[in-house]
Amino acid sequence: MTEIKDYFPNRRTIRRYSDSPLPPGLLERLLLEASHAPTTGNMQLYSVIVSSTAEEKRRLAPFHFSQPQVESAAAVLTFCADFNRFSRWCEQRQASPCYDNLQSFMAATLDTIAFAQQFNTLAELEGLGVCWLGTTTYNAAEIAGELSLPRLTVPLITLTVGYPAEEGSDVGRLPLDAIMHNGRYTDYSDTDIDRLYKEKEERSDSRQFVAENSKQTLAQVFTDIRYPRANNELFSDKFLGFLRSTGFIH
Amino acid sequence: MTEIKDYFPNRRTIRRYSDSPLPPGLLERLLLEASHAPTTGNMQLYSVIVSSTAEEKRRLAPFHFSQPQVESAAAVLTFCADFNRFSRWCEQRQASPCYDNLQSFMAATLDTIAFAQQFNTLAELEGLGVCWLGTTTYNAAEIAGELSLPRLTVPLITLTVGYPAEEGSDVGRLPLDAIMHNGRYTDYSDTDIDRLYKEKEERSDSRQFVAENSKQTLAQVFTDIRYPRANNELFSDKFLGFLRSTGFIH
Repeated sequence: MTEIKDYFPNRRTIRRYSDSPLPPGLLERLLLEASHAPTTGNMQLYSVIVSSTAEEKRRLAPFHFSQPQVESAAAVLTFCADFNRFSRWCEQRQASPCYDNLQSFMAATLDTIAFAQQFNTLAELEGLGVCWLGTTTYNAAEIAGELSLPRLTVPLITLTVGYPAEEGSDVGRLPLDAIMHNGRYTDYSDTDIDRLYKEKEERSDSRQFVAENSKQTLAQVFTDIRYPRANNELFSDKFLGFLRSTGFIH
Repeated sequence: MTEIKDYFPNRRTIRRYSDSPLPPGLLERLLLEASHAPTTGNMQLYSVIVSSTAEEKRRLAPFHFSQPQVESAAAVLTFCADFNRFSRWCEQRQASPCYDNLQSFMAATLDTIAFAQQFNTLAELEGLGVCWLGTTTYNAAEIAGELSLPRLTVPLITLTVGYPAEEGSDVGRLPLDAIMHNGRYTDYSDTDIDRLYKEKEERSDSRQFVAENSKQTLAQVFTDIRYPRANNELFSDKFLGFLRSTGFIH
């Protein structure tokens, strides 16, 4: 097991995995331990779908734009906000469930991501490599169809998991005063922005991104290539439509 | 430092704190380490506001319905989805930010909760006690006003932090097969629901909740008392209005 003091500041995303299978029962133990993460009113408003056969992974891959780690991972875990199970329990206990609304979606989202992050930490401490696929909310309807998700259930994040076949890169993080405010939010001056983003912009991988994409600044790589307006708006419309179909938004 | 193998399956919420202050620099170190949690495209779409003076905590308390842990904690941390900082950087780098949409809010929400959960784990491993306040999204507009949050910034979860003055209770969790599905979601039969919620319903604290509230079932405590429809709908309308005011939803 990784030494805890070395782990947290050095954790890395792993996208390439060896062919080693996971020991039987390992995912189950890690998920059960992760379920002790904080939840809203101890309702545990989440489910996780484990896809581990070649066929199950192959069918999910296109919804993640065929990123190779979906099929090469030992397991693909789709973490879903879930008010279906809780509502089913209410109905069976002479109680009227009332969770078809935005606050309930937010509560379930918080529970789900805290659970996913706790699983991520446990898996990495166990020596596994993990990659988060933010594409999950882009194609939530398609993923929900493939995984037979019922009403009031929304796929939010997918984690690919396996034994690492790479070391992963240290991608760096902003300095602490970029993300922490004392007492109240102090908006950033031009000088602050220059200072806080300097190290990130000067990294060799950042310079390479700018050059490869023929852009003038690193920020343009994000706005024009990685997360452009047309995509953000297209996938926002799709996700809003899906949220309506789940019953969480009217 | 807590032994890691004992920590995860036994973690507990702590609502009562001693008067001991936090050592200088501790929160800063834990937040910096927590910032290595996974993020969307390494954008780190979050900010955390640290309220540690008596006056700062007193002013936040009513937005959390005056739960006593807000004023008794050594520090109150409000974790916010934040696309303001990233957008400011874009504007200053000849790039057009395009993050006033639902997908960007979801990406920032995922980043924020993973960061908050990683901080929670680090703080608890350090011997601190933590309580999550889900009231944050109920009164997001009021909290945003108090903390001077700018556009594209949304308070999502508040953590109260201090040295424990109680052991905390083991509140139990559902069995693993309640939350894990293999290959696809298998909806719950009546028999499944009875089996999966049996242990929870038979706990003495659950029975006490039912008796104290003069209800027939534990589920009715949730639907009628703790999270009733009128509150869920009122706070959903408030939160939707606030999201519109931030620019994330139109």
